[in-house]
Amino acid sequence: MFEIVPVARVASPLVDRSDAPRQGDEGAPPAWIVFEQPFLEAARDLSEGDDVLVLTWLDRAERDVLTTRPRDDPTRPELGVFSTRSPDRPNPIGLHRVRILAIEGPRVQVADLEALDGTPVVDVKPVLDADRER
Amino acid sequence: MFEIVPVARVASPLVDRSDAPRQGDEGAPPAWIVFEQPFLEAARDLSEGDDVLVLTWLDRAERDVLTTRPRDDPTRPELGVFSTRSPDRPNPIGLHRVRILAIEGPRVQVADLEALDGTPVVDVKPVLDADRER
Repeated sequence: MFEIVPVARVASPLVDRSDAPRQGDEGAPPAWIVFEQPFLEAARDLSEGDDVLVLTWLDRAERDVLTTRPRDDPTRPELGVFSTRSPDRPNPIGLHRVRILAIEGPRVQVADLEALDGTPVVDVKPVLDADRER
Repeated sequence: MFEIVPVARVASPLVDRSDAPRQGDEGAPPAWIVFEQPFLEAARDLSEGDDVLVLTWLDRAERDVLTTRPRDDPTRPELGVFSTRSPDRPNPIGLHRVRILAIEGPRVQVADLEALDGTPVVDVKPVLDADRER
């Protein structure tokens, strides 16, 4: 068992899970990532226009779910959660590919983030070619 | 602070950080992901040929590093770790895009995994188009 620490929080107009799109490219609004002071130095080289992977801790997800119907669609077969992007999974880590729109001090604005207001951010990584295809 | 649980472990010929390639497409060997019994059900629909994202907990990384020189290259400028893929970062989550080569009971063989033997696996997700580009 390991301890994961929030390095930032999401500030977003999305406050309820039923309002959130399933994926960021399905109409998620821009949101702010507000870094905690001890981790600001790690974020100092993020720039407007960068494409980054934001890893969140989906703190309103259920961790004891092992199978689910994708998109809660009753016509689809139940799948093991490691074959889905459901937030409900043993370690509810969200992975969001977003573009940085603006930076204001400790606040970084990003496009298309489908995470709820207050969601902890646990990591930010640059996108690599190897993430896309090979 | 949140608790993250290993759902599997990596079995790999890579045993030392100095042997590991920087990225999976730089000569990492095939490796096995061995699921823990309580999480097998979540992995039941993984199939040979699937491209998946494997999230690891890089348990030999340093968590108090906020800036680093990419690839330990002294000619490069120091960067905040959120602009690098260094394993040394506040939450040392590794993100690996790999293809499933074979499945044998609780063991899933994948190509090009640059994680050390024994590394905890914390999540597996299918690759989405949105991870690649938009």
